[in-house]
Amino acid sequence: MTVSASIKKTFEFITAAILAFGLTACATAPQTDTQVTTLRGTGTLGVIIERATGSVLVVEQRSHSILHRITGLGDLSHASVVFSPDERYAYVFGRDGGLSKVDVLTGQLVRRVIQGGNSIGGAISADGRLIAVSNYEPGGVKLFDAQSLDLVADLNSQAITGHPSKTVGMVDAPGNVFMAALLDGDEIWRIHTDSNPPQVDRYPAKGRMPYDALITPDGRYYIAGLFGEDGMSLLDLWHPEKGVQRILSEYGKGEAKLPVYKMPHLEGWTIVGDTAWVPAVGHHEVLVINTRTWTLQQRIPVYSQPVFVMGRPDGRQVWVNFAYPDNGAVQVLDTETGKILRTLEPGKTVLHMEFTAKGDEVWISVRDDNKVCVYDTTTLTQKTCLPAEKPSGIFFTWRAHRIGL
Amino acid sequence: MTVSASIKKTFEFITAAILAFGLTACATAPQTDTQVTTLRGTGTLGVIIERATGSVLVVEQRSHSILHRITGLGDLSHASVVFSPDERYAYVFGRDGGLSKVDVLTGQLVRRVIQGGNSIGGAISADGRLIAVSNYEPGGVKLFDAQSLDLVADLNSQAITGHPSKTVGMVDAPGNVFMAALLDGDEIWRIHTDSNPPQVDRYPAKGRMPYDALITPDGRYYIAGLFGEDGMSLLDLWHPEKGVQRILSEYGKGEAKLPVYKMPHLEGWTIVGDTAWVPAVGHHEVLVINTRTWTLQQRIPVYSQPVFVMGRPDGRQVWVNFAYPDNGAVQVLDTETGKILRTLEPGKTVLHMEFTAKGDEVWISVRDDNKVCVYDTTTLTQKTCLPAEKPSGIFFTWRAHRIGL
Repeated sequence: MTVSASIKKTFEFITAAILAFGLTACATAPQTDTQVTTLRGTGTLGVIIERATGSVLVVEQRSHSILHRITGLGDLSHASVVFSPDERYAYVFGRDGGLSKVDVLTGQLVRRVIQGGNSIGGAISADGRLIAVSNYEPGGVKLFDAQSLDLVADLNSQAITGHPSKTVGMVDAPGNVFMAALLDGDEIWRIHTDSNPPQVDRYPAKGRMPYDALITPDGRYYIAGLFGEDGMSLLDLWHPEKGVQRILSEYGKGEAKLPVYKMPHLEGWTIVGDTAWVPAVGHHEVLVINTRTWTLQQRIPVYSQPVFVMGRPDGRQVWVNFAYPDNGAVQVLDTETGKILRTLEPGKTVLHMEFTAKGDEVWISVRDDNKVCVYDTTTLTQKTCLPAEKPSGIFFTWRAHRIGL
Repeated sequence: MTVSASIKKTFEFITAAILAFGLTACATAPQTDTQVTTLRGTGTLGVIIERATGSVLVVEQRSHSILHRITGLGDLSHASVVFSPDERYAYVFGRDGGLSKVDVLTGQLVRRVIQGGNSIGGAISADGRLIAVSNYEPGGVKLFDAQSLDLVADLNSQAITGHPSKTVGMVDAPGNVFMAALLDGDEIWRIHTDSNPPQVDRYPAKGRMPYDALITPDGRYYIAGLFGEDGMSLLDLWHPEKGVQRILSEYGKGEAKLPVYKMPHLEGWTIVGDTAWVPAVGHHEVLVINTRTWTLQQRIPVYSQPVFVMGRPDGRQVWVNFAYPDNGAVQVLDTETGKILRTLEPGKTVLHMEFTAKGDEVWISVRDDNKVCVYDTTTLTQKTCLPAEKPSGIFFTWRAHRIGL
């Protein structure tokens, strides 16, 4: 028997053994690049945050199946996820300052570091080499090697600005750049990682207390929401020398006639053609903003105070969920007419929605019913639900291929 | 010893054996879903067509490495590729009517069928279930099961229209729809695959001999070029009931003052904001078209007759290659100013370009130098080249996640 045939025979034995005894052996196998596990593409995988139990589920989109549950990830309230460019690793940013690297193929927790006392999200560089985390405690930004999670740079706000500051709104931008905003420092940072040490360009936010930010899908405009006043701060990354421009003076707390149950996340904005579809603050409205002029174009009355306004990838629909106490509903709007196509009731406490890459389905997390439900976006009907422990954020691997996600 | 520990020990042995004797054993292993091969994410893989040898290379983008060469794919001139949603399988459409399914993880040719006498490209449905091929011979469209490559439906142009017709411009559209155009039939077809049998909506092209087509990245506009006359045919898929609209009456052969060395592929169009960047036919120009009015906005003089005008994913640059005899050059244009930033000379006969998902690099195939070169799109400098046999098309797996690609 040749060596090759011998290996093949042994391989057949081990394959049979694993099929017979289940795949639990894989989970305990050492992490190497060559190991026995289910071979699969990673393009239709995803991670669902189970906030109460500090765990995440790895799911497969097309088969509507759960592949793994990974535990021990700490406090996952408001947790967010970015993926390595090859979609093999999910980086989970926990509220407790934990940064966890999960192998979505094997279902293993590769490494976990407590990198700060209280963190508010992170990003990965376009080349996949660096992870950036924006911290409340101790403030500033830390950069980590994406492979090892070793600290590469500590951009301490005290050292750079003379004052400690929480940072928010961390996203990646073209050119291996990270963008962040300083909540206490009223600044926007543009962090160049192709220089060593990383260079920080500082821009006055021209407004008080940026509390969150987004970048447009083309990576051109970085827009921060202001907690301290109405309006927003916009930096054109094609012309940073022009500095920050204030836009949308009517947007913010000042317009609120109703109690604000939840400040909407800015990642809940959706760009459709020349418009941005945005949750109003404290109003039962979705706002349509003209992105050529950055002015308000239309107010659309909806069921309650919107939290996320998520666009189907083709931009023809936006799906909207709502703040407490109306968080059992989801409304689907036609972006051409502004009309409400359907009001759905997936269950108790809808927290997040994620579309498949081409938008044929959307997955909705229904926290207090312990389920994630899948809808057909053509028929607007429910296809199936999967069990999950108090699910919140849903993150699909196609995000690896989009600027700012 | 427990069963689990026993498996682990056996696993460690086989891992060590494979590491010691190389990975050739993998290539001969039976194709199952559980096998010994290199575990990896598929998000940064790609396929490069080697047209002269009927082979393809599987490459990894971040390490600039070649993983596999798969042979026996027939005539690959003008070959194109689509990926399964999970990015595991590449479907290669050959000019000889061959449809090949390649496993990019294992480097195996899973199946190959000769589905027609002469084909001109294909597409995959949003849900990944169906492959559609547009054929010159015998004409019409065939649909295949994406898993087995078994024929599912034969949309014969003779049977449907009463006349045989070559079909071109096959793309996927939202709602598991395929779009194609009939070269001889002067029609545009909208093929609904969610009904059984598939339903074909027919629209007169309002112009003679559509020779190629594209769909905008949002999946809304299907635009066919006309060989028989100037101008193009546009169908708004949000309002198909309005029928085809003729646009760009100045676009086509009629404007050519120079001999046309090559009709530009329409997949070489790039949408940047409200503009489309388009190769002129027979002129040393790139055309900028306003996509709100579908009228010509600007003509930009370039080095020679453009073939592909490819946009960096953030839309800030377009990269242009040229027809014979000027096909050794590539020009990089700034989309904001229309200025030429750099003229590069990668080598003899530049055929295709493909950006990484976030655009930090672009790969360029240089056929007659038998190489594929990688450029940094920030510095516009060459990083490395890989050897390849007469390379033509380059297709990265991120395409799995974009409408129409």
